[in-house]
Amino acid sequence: MAVLGANQYGKAESRVVRIVRDVDRPEARHEIVDLNVSSSLRGDFEAAHVDGEQSAVLPTDTQKNTAFAYAKLHGVSSPEDYALALGRRLLEATPAAQTAQVRVEQYAWNRLAKHAFVRRGGEVRTCVVTVGRDATHVVSGLQDLVVLKSTGSEFKGFLVDEFTTLAEADDRILATSLVARWRHEGLEVDWNASYDEVRDALLSTFATTYSRALQETLYLMGSCVVDTLPGIAEVRFSAPNRHHFLVDFSGFDAQGLTNEGEVFVAADRPYGLIECQVSREGALPAVEAWLGVPGFC
Amino acid sequence: MAVLGANQYGKAESRVVRIVRDVDRPEARHEIVDLNVSSSLRGDFEAAHVDGEQSAVLPTDTQKNTAFAYAKLHGVSSPEDYALALGRRLLEATPAAQTAQVRVEQYAWNRLAKHAFVRRGGEVRTCVVTVGRDATHVVSGLQDLVVLKSTGSEFKGFLVDEFTTLAEADDRILATSLVARWRHEGLEVDWNASYDEVRDALLSTFATTYSRALQETLYLMGSCVVDTLPGIAEVRFSAPNRHHFLVDFSGFDAQGLTNEGEVFVAADRPYGLIECQVSREGALPAVEAWLGVPGFC
Amino acid sequence: MAVLGANQYGKAESRVVRIVRDVDRPEARHEIVDLNVSSSLRGDFEAAHVDGEQSAVLPTDTQKNTAFAYAKLHGVSSPEDYALALGRRLLEATPAAQTAQVRVEQYAWNRLAKHAFVRRGGEVRTCVVTVGRDATHVVSGLQDLVVLKSTGSEFKGFLVDEFTTLAEADDRILATSLVARWRHEGLEVDWNASYDEVRDALLSTFATTYSRALQETLYLMGSCVVDTLPGIAEVRFSAPNRHHFLVDFSGFDAQGLTNEGEVFVAADRPYGLIECQVSREGALPAVEAWLGVPGFC
Amino acid sequence: MAVLGANQYGKAESRVVRIVRDVDRPEARHEIVDLNVSSSLRGDFEAAHVDGEQSAVLPTDTQKNTAFAYAKLHGVSSPEDYALALGRRLLEATPAAQTAQVRVEQYAWNRLAKHAFVRRGGEVRTCVVTVGRDATHVVSGLQDLVVLKSTGSEFKGFLVDEFTTLAEADDRILATSLVARWRHEGLEVDWNASYDEVRDALLSTFATTYSRALQETLYLMGSCVVDTLPGIAEVRFSAPNRHHFLVDFSGFDAQGLTNEGEVFVAADRPYGLIECQVSREGALPAVEAWLGVPGFC
Repeated sequence: MAVLGANQYGKAESRVVRIVRDVDRPEARHEIVDLNVSSSLRGDFEAAHVDGEQSAVLPTDTQKNTAFAYAKLHGVSSPEDYALALGRRLLEATPAAQTAQVRVEQYAWNRLAKHAFVRRGGEVRTCVVTVGRDATHVVSGLQDLVVLKSTGSEFKGFLVDEFTTLAEADDRILATSLVARWRHEGLEVDWNASYDEVRDALLSTFATTYSRALQETLYLMGSCVVDTLPGIAEVRFSAPNRHHFLVDFSGFDAQGLTNEGEVFVAADRPYGLIECQVSREGALPAVEAWLGVPGFC
Repeated sequence: MAVLGANQYGKAESRVVRIVRDVDRPEARHEIVDLNVSSSLRGDFEAAHVDGEQSAVLPTDTQKNTAFAYAKLHGVSSPEDYALALGRRLLEATPAAQTAQVRVEQYAWNRLAKHAFVRRGGEVRTCVVTVGRDATHVVSGLQDLVVLKSTGSEFKGFLVDEFTTLAEADDRILATSLVARWRHEGLEVDWNASYDEVRDALLSTFATTYSRALQETLYLMGSCVVDTLPGIAEVRFSAPNRHHFLVDFSGFDAQGLTNEGEVFVAADRPYGLIECQVSREGALPAVEAWLGVPGFC
Repeated sequence: MAVLGANQYGKAESRVVRIVRDVDRPEARHEIVDLNVSSSLRGDFEAAHVDGEQSAVLPTDTQKNTAFAYAKLHGVSSPEDYALALGRRLLEATPAAQTAQVRVEQYAWNRLAKHAFVRRGGEVRTCVVTVGRDATHVVSGLQDLVVLKSTGSEFKGFLVDEFTTLAEADDRILATSLVARWRHEGLEVDWNASYDEVRDALLSTFATTYSRALQETLYLMGSCVVDTLPGIAEVRFSAPNRHHFLVDFSGFDAQGLTNEGEVFVAADRPYGLIECQVSREGALPAVEAWLGVPGFC
Repeated sequence: MAVLGANQYGKAESRVVRIVRDVDRPEARHEIVDLNVSSSLRGDFEAAHVDGEQSAVLPTDTQKNTAFAYAKLHGVSSPEDYALALGRRLLEATPAAQTAQVRVEQYAWNRLAKHAFVRRGGEVRTCVVTVGRDATHVVSGLQDLVVLKSTGSEFKGFLVDEFTTLAEADDRILATSLVARWRHEGLEVDWNASYDEVRDALLSTFATTYSRALQETLYLMGSCVVDTLPGIAEVRFSAPNRHHFLVDFSGFDAQGLTNEGEVFVAADRPYGLIECQVSREGALPAVEAWLGVPGFC
């Protein structure tokens, strides 16, 4: 006899673009907010699965409509603030739901003129907001933050077995395409200022500390965040090691062709994948804040 | 004060291709096995993070080497069997580890001739094997299984609020790109035969049952697996709803241009995302079998 | 002073799905045709560019609408036949155009039941039809055809300079993800039968001939097509060499670990890229048939 | 009888990363150059195709080796300068070749510290250099430059047929992910300064001109480049129209929910694709500079 277990459903990847304009002043500057919005509902949806009975199910199409409507009705002062409003609305509209989760990716644009923009590229700002009947959690984050140190990184003293051929490295390139997520303890946060502070803490720690392994660097980055920024309970990292291998010129019959840490091949696959969590001592855990969040240990 | 939490590390996406050949009989048929192999170790790696001390760390490069070596030393009779051997080896080689997880994707090839093959395409077979000091878990699966029903699917009777504009559908296209994973209770399994049985159960249920929602169809598919195939404790699905919208020809000034369920636009984004778990009643849960497995609720 | 040169415009990647059903017999089998359709118009569109004056411009939105409408009005017995009808319509509807080009990708499905299907994967069938005021050209093709020979391939006797470190190979894996396109001389063709014939010729030549380089194999494949299949004037190939490197086990301290052509690493980048054209002697060239077709020399 | 036509071969996508460092001054600032390098040779390679005879063929592996070696031996003051040196070397090393083409993509990084960097994202700088026995051509470019105007764009007065349903737009969002390439007449160019000038010309024209169609905007952008920047003979654009559709709130029963150009859905597919060339009057054409360059009419 089959039993339905955990389940969730929603609409993924609504591409919501909000232009903020003053309708009465067409010459005033516009602002642009560019989002990829996903929502999921969890709760008592057994009838939909077992009996094919949909009366408790707010359609995913409606979830999408609400995401667009709330870009106007509530506005998007930050992805977190918008996701909180959207999550609360979806939960309220769906009595059978116990939680509504809203996941947002924000793409940044630079201004060219009052009404013209160029997409910035680089990292994508993210948030995952989980609104429950009793508690609400906000996890902010970023992804695709590609960083590289051209020195100040070693890897040695590791465990060796009969399949180990890796040489110890005193000086190597360290690079990763970072995914980081951090959980806030409260909801009264200046989300945009907080984002900038965390990003700065991550980058400055990466740039200024010596690395004996990507693990150590991640731990230092996470420590800096939870130790110096109040209100952040924990940080989680997923960091693919973007290997840069020194090119071996020894087989080339070319005069003066040496390679003292100068020419590397950037490899695609395979890649080391380092994942860890760093918490502030004494911070309360929150399992439900991380449910369904991809790529974390 | 920062505290290290859960962590894991390993090598992702080693592209291991194994040709089985009889070296003494060059004219005999070859077999090909084509894998994408990832491994992760969890355990007591605090020194690597906190002190930058690597003596407990089996390098990800060694994990990769072992993946290639075991394709020869152990062979690949099935992805599950290979992953079990590789996981056991990695755990044995790394005293600090508590578990070794091996994730495999297998790409299928069709034979053209004794030594020539064409890649089949279609779904990718997967497995996630977690070898612990006390228990070992095998989760088999598939991904990218794109299925479509051109009738026999409705969606109606759903919850309506002020943002709901979706019309009820008596007859629609139902399509998804399915990810399914199922957990075996034991390790004495004919993995290849079992895979074929589950795949057949999933496809025949999809093809032959009426659908009142993708949720119901997934539940029926999962029920068929746990009810009819002994040794499968649970199935988990992640199913993006690949929407096919009926094209509206009403604005066209063209004689005889009607659309009675005949012309659809296949949409990319947004998409409904339906996820659920179906267990056999009484089956023991196994949280550790699913740690770090992406895309499941 | 700036001068406008060649230009074209159109709608790319309309995802047209056509279900063929008998409305009066709901229980009869359905057929599915799954296409990605792009169209482009060339001609005298200088006013649109230089003066911003659009009166000669059939909107790309209309091109899309027509692609969907023609899936019903004309039907899709083959991508070529559909593309010819669509191209003729777009040219007729746009007096300023000199040519209409329609590019189609077709995704194959296997039948599960009368009304249920599973996407096949593997190669994608393509066509590029260019309809002009005076001449019409049909280029059929395929892409993503991944083939591999596990023996019967060498590469030696090549040019050597001071940067050459590659060893000669007597026996290697040869693999490619083939893009092939072939031009028909006429329009009275059984397109589906012809496609199967060309695909078979390509695969059987790949499978049964010895390879001294991918160049030679491509030439043999193309020769087989133009020599044995009447009405094909030329074939063009773009073939990334999917390198499979023999894994070096010499550094491993593991008994009996040899590698006699048994374990390979499949590499992503970089890759050799081999492109060539093969024509039937005396066939008339047709430059306009290939305008804007990507990836060919 | 089959005849070999045009053909080319080479190594694609070598990921060359060059760190510029002063070995004697470890504390001095590093520079990073991050490239994706492809090369192709054309010429008399008939024996390789027809006879399987490789003596004229410089292996693609050697081309890759040379790409890495030249990152050190010649250095990378600009992608164009590096590609010229590499192309000349490959042509010199391969007597059978008539031309060597080198294609480079450059990924930009921002500095974090003396030895630490963060990848910038945004557009990718490109060049295609074709070195022949008699003439050499340099085509510089960029891709993935995503720009958007939130007003100042219309589309109306277009051709209407029975499949046209598009409404005229007085005020719409105009957005594209631009690919642009421009051909230099000479080789004595400050490549980095020139790149900045062209990029600035493209962006400022996009930002400051009114658009009656993407065609007009591209023509204005190209005109600005060829009219104001000496030494640029022609510009070619490939511009997918990234449609942003105004969301229709009329079906929502929500007070005050209007949409005066404020909330848009960013669509993926289909998309308009506009391509054109703009030349300086009197500039000599150069067909061979564009051979094999993808995505241009």
